[in-house]
Parts: sequence; C-alpha cells; structure tokens
Amino acid sequence: MRAISSPSFLIHHRPSAVLRCLRHHGLPFLSSSFVKLKPESTLTSYAEVDSNTRLGRSGSLASPPPQSDAAAQKIDVNPPKGTRDFPPEEMRLRNWLFQNFREVSLSFGFEEVDFPVLESEALFIRKAGEEIREQLYCFEDRGNRRVALRPELTPSLARLVIQKGKSLSLPLKWFAIGQCWRYERMTRGRRREHYQWNMDIIGVPNVTAEAELLSSIICFFKGIGITAVDVGFKVSSRKVLQEVLRRYSIPENLFGRVCVIIDKLEKIPLDEIKKELRSAELSEEAAEELLEIISIKTLTKLEEKLGDSVEAIADLKQLFSLAEKYGYSEWIQFDASIVRGLAYYTGIVFEGFDREGKLRAICGGGRYDKLLSTFGGEDIPACGFGFGDAVIVELLKERGLLPDLSPQVQNIVCSLDQDLQGAACSVAAKLREKNQTVDLVLETKPLKWVFKRAAKINAERLILVGSAEWQKGMVGVKILSSGQQYEIKFDDLE
Amino acid sequence: MRAISSPSFLIHHRPSAVLRCLRHHGLPFLSSSFVKLKPESTLTSYAEVDSNTRLGRSGSLASPPPQSDAAAQKIDVNPPKGTRDFPPEEMRLRNWLFQNFREVSLSFGFEEVDFPVLESEALFIRKAGEEIREQLYCFEDRGNRRVALRPELTPSLARLVIQKGKSLSLPLKWFAIGQCWRYERMTRGRRREHYQWNMDIIGVPNVTAEAELLSSIICFFKGIGITAVDVGFKVSSRKVLQEVLRRYSIPENLFGRVCVIIDKLEKIPLDEIKKELRSAELSEEAAEELLEIISIKTLTKLEEKLGDSVEAIADLKQLFSLAEKYGYSEWIQFDASIVRGLAYYTGIVFEGFDREGKLRAICGGGRYDKLLSTFGGEDIPACGFGFGDAVIVELLKERGLLPDLSPQVQNIVCSLDQDLQGAACSVAAKLREKNQTVDLVLETKPLKWVFKRAAKINAERLILVGSAEWQKGMVGVKILSSGQQYEIKFDDLE
Repeated sequence: MRAISSPSFLIHHRPSAVLRCLRHHGLPFLSSSFVKLKPESTLTSYAEVDSNTRLGRSGSLASPPPQSDAAAQKIDVNPPKGTRDFPPEEMRLRNWLFQNFREVSLSFGFEEVDFPVLESEALFIRKAGEEIREQLYCFEDRGNRRVALRPELTPSLARLVIQKGKSLSLPLKWFAIGQCWRYERMTRGRRREHYQWNMDIIGVPNVTAEAELLSSIICFFKGIGITAVDVGFKVSSRKVLQEVLRRYSIPENLFGRVCVIIDKLEKIPLDEIKKELRSAELSEEAAEELLEIISIKTLTKLEEKLGDSVEAIADLKQLFSLAEKYGYSEWIQFDASIVRGLAYYTGIVFEGFDREGKLRAICGGGRYDKLLSTFGGEDIPACGFGFGDAVIVELLKERGLLPDLSPQVQNIVCSLDQDLQGAACSVAAKLREKNQTVDLVLETKPLKWVFKRAAKINAERLILVGSAEWQKGMVGVKILSSGQQYEIKFDDLE
Repeated sequence: MRAISSPSFLIHHRPSAVLRCLRHHGLPFLSSSFVKLKPESTLTSYAEVDSNTRLGRSGSLASPPPQSDAAAQKIDVNPPKGTRDFPPEEMRLRNWLFQNFREVSLSFGFEEVDFPVLESEALFIRKAGEEIREQLYCFEDRGNRRVALRPELTPSLARLVIQKGKSLSLPLKWFAIGQCWRYERMTRGRRREHYQWNMDIIGVPNVTAEAELLSSIICFFKGIGITAVDVGFKVSSRKVLQEVLRRYSIPENLFGRVCVIIDKLEKIPLDEIKKELRSAELSEEAAEELLEIISIKTLTKLEEKLGDSVEAIADLKQLFSLAEKYGYSEWIQFDASIVRGLAYYTGIVFEGFDREGKLRAICGGGRYDKLLSTFGGEDIPACGFGFGDAVIVELLKERGLLPDLSPQVQNIVCSLDQDLQGAACSVAAKLREKNQTVDLVLETKPLKWVFKRAAKINAERLILVGSAEWQKGMVGVKILSSGQQYEIKFDDLE
C-alpha cells in the first residue's frame, strides 16, 4: 500500500464534465483510466436516472403504465389495515429494539423460545369476558380446524410447558419476541398487530421471580436512556381482590371475570362497572367494598383495611423490599387499581406507565399460577410480562431518545469500465473473505452517482477498479472521511 | 480479590450430607455460614424436586390432575399440525441460522426489511396454475377483507416498492427473513410453515445482479462449512423457453403457465406434462421441441440448438464468466430443465441442490423483471432468491455440521439463606451493570442443585452469598472450570 503521489493518478488534463462533477464532490480522485469511462452519461444526475421511464414508479399509481398487461389490476399498495411494512429504516429501529430486548433477557440468564403465530383457537378462548376474545383473528383452515393468529404469547408457552412435561428443568426462564394480532377498531391509532417481548419464569412460587422480572424491564429502560422520571410501575396483587371476594363468600370461579371488569375502570363509566359487577353476582355491598379497596394507593392503608395477615400484603412488602436491594425502588409504587385485563393472573400484577400520562400502558405482567390447569395440565407457579413494540417507540420519540441508526457498509466497490465488472467482483469477494462489508456497484455508473451512494450507505472506503491500475494488479482506494487516496495491490487488500 | 487460604473458609468439620454432596461435585467450597443453610433439604436431589407433586406435569396428560377445575378441558398440547414450537435448543439453532443469513446479507451491503405475515389475498393470486394458489392459508377477516398468510415474500416486496415509488434510490438491495405459510398435504414430512431468507436486487437489469446473489448464497454455505462437494446450483434462463415459444408463435401470456407446467417435470409423469402443455395450446411439435430443449445440460449444446444470437445464451455466458471472477465456478452448472415453479420469473433461474440427491431443493431464485406491472406498477428489473430454513438444517444434520449451541451464562448467583435473597439480588444487579450475564437463583436451593444448574448453563463463575462473608461486605466466588475459589468485596465485583 502506498500513498498516491504519481502524477498519473491525479487529474491535470481533460477538465471534462466528469471532472467538474468530481470537483463538486470534493476532490479529484482518478487515474487516467477513470476518465475514459462512460463520458456520455456522466452528467446524468442520480435523480435523472431515477426518473428515467424504465425506473419510474410512483406515477404509475395515478395513471396506468402504458405497456402494462391489460389483465393487470392495480392492487392496494398499502399493507392490510392495521399492519405495517418494515422498510429499511423501520427495520433498523425494530432490530435495535429487539436487540435491546434480547441483550437484557440474556443478561438475566433467560433462554429464547418461540411458538407458531397460528395456534388452535381453543388456546385463547377463556370465559372471563376478556376483550381479547372478541378481537381474535380466527378462521377455519383447509383441514377444518379452528385456528387463530395468536393475540398473546403466554398460552402457547403454557401449552409447550405442559407438552414438555418432566423433560424440563425448573425453573424455566424463557423469553420470546413474537408478533401478536388483535382485530381492534382502529379508532385510537392502534394497530392490529404488534411485536411483544415476553419474559416468563416458570417454577418459582416466590415474589423473587416478579422482582427479577421488574428488574429486567428496568435494565432495559436504563439501557435505552429512559429513567424513573419518565416511567414508573404501578404494582398490586390480585390476592387483594381475592381477599375481598373471600370475605363476601363469592365463588372462586368468578374471580377472573371480576378482575376483567375491574380492569375496565378507566375505560367505561363507573355505573357500567357496577352493573357488570352486579351481573357477576356480587352484592351491592361487595361491589362498593371492592371499588373502595382498589382506590387505595399505599400499602399502609391497605394493611389498615385488610389486616396484616393477608398474603397479598406480605407479597407486596417483600417485593418492595427486594426492589430496594436491586436498586429500583424509585421506579415502583403500590396502586390497588392495577389488576390487568387478562383473566389468568393470580398474584402480583404490574404495569409500566408513562409518568406524563400521555401514553397507554407500556408493558404489563404478573403471576399466573393457575393457567396450566385451565389447559388440563397440573399447575406450576409462573409469572411473566408482555412488552409491546409500539408504545415504547412513541415514548422514545416523545423524549427525543430515538437512536440514530444509519446504514453502515464499510466499502463501496466500483469498476470504471464494463469490462472490469468481473474484476470488481473479484475485489468484492476478496474483501468479504476478509470480513469486510461491501456494496458492489453492479452497473457502470457515473462517479457522481457512486459518491452519492457511498454517502448514503456511510461507506468508509471507495475502492475503484480502473484498467490502468488493474493491469498492474492494483486498485484505487479512497478513504472517504479523510479524502486520503492511494493504490494498493489486489493481493494486499483487507 | 484474594485467594482463599484462611482455614475458616475451608471445611474441616461437620462432614455432613452437604459435604459429601459437595465433594461429589469436585471440591469443598464453603465458609462456615454456607454449611448452616437449609440442612434439612440438602439431600433433596434435583430430580426429586422436579418430580415433587406441585411441579409434576407430564403425568397430567395421561390422567387428569386431581385438583383441576371441573371445567378445564385438556387441550392438544402440540402446535397445530405442520407448525413448530421453538423450545430453547431449537431457538438457538434458528438464531444461529438467521444470524448467518444476516451476516452474509450485511456483508453484501443489503438492508433488512419485513412485511406483514398477513397480506391481501389478491397479492398471491396469479393465473398460472401455480401450486402456491391451492396452498394459501386464506380467510375473510372481521372487516370482510380477503386476507392470506403470506406463502412467500416477493409479492410483498413488490408491493412495497410500488408504494414507495420515487422515494427509493435504486438499486435496492434488500433482504428479509420471514415466516411463510403453505397448506400442503403432510405426506412428505413437510411442514406448513417455514422461515425464508430472501435477498433481492431491484433496479439492476444486468446478470451482475444474479451473479452477486449466487455469490452471497455461496458465502453463506462456506460460512457454515458446506462446500461445492455438498451443494451445487443448477442455472438456466427462462429466456430459453421464451425463445422456443417465440419460434412457435405461442402467445406471451402463456409463458408463465408453460413454465409452471415444465417445473413439474420430476414430480408428475411425462405424459401428464405433455397433456398439460397441449391444453395450454402448444402444438405437439412445440411441446416436443420444448421438452427436448430442456433436457440440454451444456451451454455449447444449447448454442448449437438455438444459435448464438439468443439473449439467454449471452446472459448465461456472462453469468458463468462472472462466477469465475468471484471464484465460485465449481458450484454452478447449466441445466436447461431448471425453470422454477413461480410464474413471475423472466430470465436467469437457479436452484441450489444437494449433490447426494437426497434432499429437496435447498433454495431457488431468479430474475422477475415483470412482476411489478402485474400489480399495476411500472416494471423495474429485479431478481432475488428464497432460501428456506428446513432443508438446510436437514443437510447440516446429514453432513454432521450442526453447530454445538449450548446455553452460556457467565455467572450463577445464589444466596445461602432466605434472608440473603435480597443481597443476592444486589449482587446480580451489580454484575449485570458490569455487562455480565447472570442467572440468579430465585429460591434457596441445595448446593447440589446449584452446581447442576451451573453445569447446565455452562456458568463460568458461581457467586455464593453467605452470611459470614456478606457481613464483611464480601461474597464467595468459585471459578467453575478451574475450581479456584476466593472471596471478593462486593464493591470490587465485575
């Protein structure tokens, strides 16, 4: 490798359009062979190339393309309502987010799992009047099976745990990042699919498990720059409601249904809630007591109300004590109104919220010790959370914390002559063998175009294959940040 | 940090069950405080804990659990027919495979994209009699839209390209790894879903694009240990068939249909093929000629047959010449019988195959310059390939090339006393802050259990939190590979 100082490599003749174009791009970087190339097209700007008839596209939506097949119908170019495409910039954000989910999960010793996006409908049909049931994407497949696009991951996890049985070593610490589907009315700018990060601990009855889950979410938040000033967690236990129901001798099988009703508290009028509770066979007195209890915001008051022998209070006290040891006390607060909308929670429940109150719940979870038996398995203590990919991105936008995720390719390799395309292939192959990332220019393009492309992909080096150099077994290299340029032997490329 | 040599840290008294168990595990590693812990449970083996009634599970499938809700129905614990769960070991393999797809794609300067798994049915309905149409998972959603689980990714890509129109800078180099669905009869051990790696180049009319795609697949193979002895590519061009059709004045709109018929050549009897060709309005003569041409296995013979002015031959020659420059000539061979089963290919087509002939096609792709106009967009030259996650895993198994992907967590942290669980949380939090991965034991467990768990997750260090050490602000560390053990200040942990 040597710095290029030989006059033949610099341009001091033929101040052509090529040269004007190159100068405009900062510096002359050409051996004489570079100049010979495609002079007739060098002034074609990138934009012009792009709007060339062959490549024109967006106009085709307004008027039919002249040569199109008579039979061709214009399709709707948007993804189905409520769903998303992930073009590169969106995909980079999704990958960044998932990478953060993954890193946190792995740092907590969790193993990744996944399940089919298409499951038996039966897995999601529960009797508690959950919103989720009315929102299932379900249908009959060609084999007459009732199937559904999963609206959540936990039932599949429970199914797999039952299936694997004793071959599993408890506790399981599993995480998943999967797409989930709900057919919702599109009123609140909601989508009908989202990706959900789940972490679940199967086989630990103690609230140490919930404390560990909260710790992992908080690690995630910290990792992406979100603090306890931005986000908090409301924590309660369903055992609080269970205790009230017990005191009023309300049958246990109503528990899930009552929780689902209470979860609607901020979504429908109070009178409606009371009516629903009455129709769930609660006396007016019990309903009033329930509503009073869930308005409590401190553990002390809850203890005054229920007495200190209640399991819920011991659990919550232990959780708050562990939070102190983990160092995340400032993130969590007791709030008896949190019950979560899924029927299967049985103990601690929690919900991550935006402290500015602008956004919907960011994530939520809790203990579900009885889910497996609803599928005919034997129960194993379990808890977990779901964390969607939508609200967190809104929050990051609100706080100006969205990362800058530009594309990044180390090299752009370009031949200066159609006859040298094969040589450029050799160069690209060589660099990739050395673990370099390479964008190979696949057509002979004007240098202006190449520089623009290099800028777009944030290339570090431009490797130019020109005939004079190639005959000597060399290629031209330009370091794009510094403008440094030199020739290097093909064999020495790395 | 200091090596532990103080006698108080070594065990020379109370040769209890704990000690016997520890010795069995290699070495005594206990301060006196360790020994005090849960002596009553130290003999409970891991297996015993696991088969404890509360945790028993697999039996529940044979007989109903005694305390289960009377209403609970046993669900089918298997994923829907033709679909898969990904328990941790399968997920590690999937992640490894996808990581290899991703790394290769990025090293070629491709950007990742994705599309909804649920698309409009119209996107996949073509008139060529493709197998794919009969295999659609399609249904009407709650808004009366005909939708389908995508059977492939290319139509969605085409849709997005049309939608983005001029905002895109050509050429696009996009890759995607997405799940695709086909309702097939389950006769051949086939599944109904698979993940497919796609790479597509949009905006390059020249076969340099196909050559680049082949290069990337071959890079992928090399990266996972597969050689040209294991795998080859059969390459042809649909322009060969097009030329034959042209010579027999067969209308262009029959082209896709004829290709789809020819693709069935090794799947259904020759007479059936001929019948189908006749019903596609080909004369007997044309059909015979077509069948003769596609039996050709060398470019020279093809040239003799069609003459050297045919575009197909120029394309193929250029492709083979570029392959030489890339250095992958030994991987590819001309074979006129390759046409691929999708209607939209227009030029070069290729198929990766197992040279032992045991497996189905590993991957396939080609040029599809006319796909966009079938959706009402203006055409842009394009090519791409699809590479499923099923056959490649079979091949890796066949060749003994499946990677060893054990779980790997750096630390296992364990308190020796329930009262120290909070301290263990502090230790885990501290280590994770230092970017260490930590499996925190969430219940007080016998040391035998902890060692077994440590082995299972391939932990490098065991961090034990015992009361005597913790009072001094220390924890015990054991390096599991060497057996080295010492105490370290909590503050110095990293």
